[in-house]
Amino acid sequence: MAFTDWMTDYAGRDWQQSASGTVRYALVGLGWWTTDVALPAIAAAELCETTVVVSSSAEKASRIAGEHGVDYGITYDDYHEGVAADAYDAVYIATPNAFHLEYAETAAQLDKGVLCEKPMEASVERAERIVNVCDDADVPLMVAYRMQTDPAVRRARELVEDGFLGEPVQVYGNNSQPLLEMIPDRNQWRLNPELTGYGASVMDLGIYSINTARYLLRRDPVTVEARMSSPHEAFDAVPDERSSFLAVLEGDVQMVSTASQRAHADTQLKITGTDGQLELRPAFHGQCTLYASKGDVTAEVSHRSFDAVEEMTEEFDYFADRLLSEAIIYPDGEHGLTDLRIIEAIHQAADTETAVGLD
Amino acid sequence: MAFTDWMTDYAGRDWQQSASGTVRYALVGLGWWTTDVALPAIAAAELCETTVVVSSSAEKASRIAGEHGVDYGITYDDYHEGVAADAYDAVYIATPNAFHLEYAETAAQLDKGVLCEKPMEASVERAERIVNVCDDADVPLMVAYRMQTDPAVRRARELVEDGFLGEPVQVYGNNSQPLLEMIPDRNQWRLNPELTGYGASVMDLGIYSINTARYLLRRDPVTVEARMSSPHEAFDAVPDERSSFLAVLEGDVQMVSTASQRAHADTQLKITGTDGQLELRPAFHGQCTLYASKGDVTAEVSHRSFDAVEEMTEEFDYFADRLLSEAIIYPDGEHGLTDLRIIEAIHQAADTETAVGLD
Repeated sequence: MAFTDWMTDYAGRDWQQSASGTVRYALVGLGWWTTDVALPAIAAAELCETTVVVSSSAEKASRIAGEHGVDYGITYDDYHEGVAADAYDAVYIATPNAFHLEYAETAAQLDKGVLCEKPMEASVERAERIVNVCDDADVPLMVAYRMQTDPAVRRARELVEDGFLGEPVQVYGNNSQPLLEMIPDRNQWRLNPELTGYGASVMDLGIYSINTARYLLRRDPVTVEARMSSPHEAFDAVPDERSSFLAVLEGDVQMVSTASQRAHADTQLKITGTDGQLELRPAFHGQCTLYASKGDVTAEVSHRSFDAVEEMTEEFDYFADRLLSEAIIYPDGEHGLTDLRIIEAIHQAADTETAVGLD
Repeated sequence: MAFTDWMTDYAGRDWQQSASGTVRYALVGLGWWTTDVALPAIAAAELCETTVVVSSSAEKASRIAGEHGVDYGITYDDYHEGVAADAYDAVYIATPNAFHLEYAETAAQLDKGVLCEKPMEASVERAERIVNVCDDADVPLMVAYRMQTDPAVRRARELVEDGFLGEPVQVYGNNSQPLLEMIPDRNQWRLNPELTGYGASVMDLGIYSINTARYLLRRDPVTVEARMSSPHEAFDAVPDERSSFLAVLEGDVQMVSTASQRAHADTQLKITGTDGQLELRPAFHGQCTLYASKGDVTAEVSHRSFDAVEEMTEEFDYFADRLLSEAIIYPDGEHGLTDLRIIEAIHQAADTETAVGLD
């Protein structure tokens, strides 16, 4: 039966082209995401390993390297000077947004592949410089949209392509979390516009709805309207403790989306079409469950063991596979740049309270 | 335990003030909603009965009256002439939107209470005339927002008042259906702007999200932005086969909402707060299920036997109870008028592609 085949293939890698080979990563930035998620994810991966970790602190770099059996723990200065450059093939940049450019520039100079966390940088202009520097040096650049290697999201995209929705009509995305409960530090970088860029909720949370909708539908926004505000004093420096936007995507698909850094945790992405509906809930932070509905029937498929570490294992292996096979990278620099242009337009639309067009 | 008490009270009528008494309704407009839902709903009710049915066709009026054991089946002309006026105390107006005013005018002349289907009329101006004519004649006027007597919605409102959400942050509403599959008639009145008013999806579907959010939060929109379009030829005469809006409610609560008359059927209303989340899904057409979430815990409460007939039984008994007890009517004419002002502003915002303020 078709459904049984589909279930059997559900969690499989439809993208893998390299049966063997190893890409050696240098991980730049040793926050909790890198230590708790990225390092274990690469340890579990098939096509890559961590050989270098890079931090502002020599002590921390050495300690983390030791704890994880990584060959080199070096400082940012060491990294820029090319220390241990022969020991890695690619870098994973997981620093605050506003530092991505400088690490990408050095990677390009050293002829290393660049896997850059999203959003690419703190502004469109700085993200463009990443694209240019990687282009000029002819090094591969990928933006780490881990939703794009999540099996539930990939299967949802296949269903869209297969016409499951009929004509897509409307999209809803939400990504909310209680940031100050998760990280009870008012000096954290996500609240500092010098480090985060345009703001706190669209850059960090709304980007999931935006990018996953673009990925699933292969359609980009052509116009956006938006509202944002920061009622809580911890968010005084950023405009968007909470944000909402209304976008029209190519082909007249309407999208509404909300994000908040000070709200009950909830993630949902729902695409309604003329003939059916696809929904991810939870949508964005591991353990995606996919709901596919037609008429009165809903199929619910989850990949129960899947979590953020596994998502990142897929991500690191995917980029490794692209490097080993020289296959086309889907979420490339231009793709990531489009997200930043959309985010910039959302902030501009909220500022001006008018619709902002995107080319 | 508090939760057990709460469950026990869940489906109860917190509004009933009259232990006995009977209000006699004349039902004006005999479409499927009146025959399949309203008549059985009143037959099951405690405080009311149907004594008159009114249609354009004398034959249909007599036939429906006979089938349902109703005393009088009369024509619209008969109604305007006061035929059988001694046989009823109140009218229920369930005609196409653009005819509500004329039946309300006659009801007011005849000193009858008016239960008017939503939206109140085809325009703000005509709805204002209903309010004025009822005010001048001093007859009670209620708009038939049946969500407001749905037990799940009333319990959700109590939870909001109890502070369950913390501070409300964001609201999402969707109401979509495949109208042409449900009623395969391209000449139906909902596609005719002369009869429906501003359009097809906000007037008929979006109004549920708008009004239920207003009811639950006791907050009205202060500004709206919107997009709408009618890609399918059956919707050529109306601007909004599909529509989306972004509103800011009083107290800086952001709301996004979508509606479509040509899409997979789905209803959802979700309110996210700083401390919790309340969600209705399905939300609007009977069989509401309420989800209440805090942290990692979600309680799901449904009222499984509840359907549209029971919703309308509550509605008819509620209005009967208001008439018998002379208690305050919550969804009164001003309340319904506010919805029409919001809908008008949504259409204006979509036309002009700019934010429209509401006083």
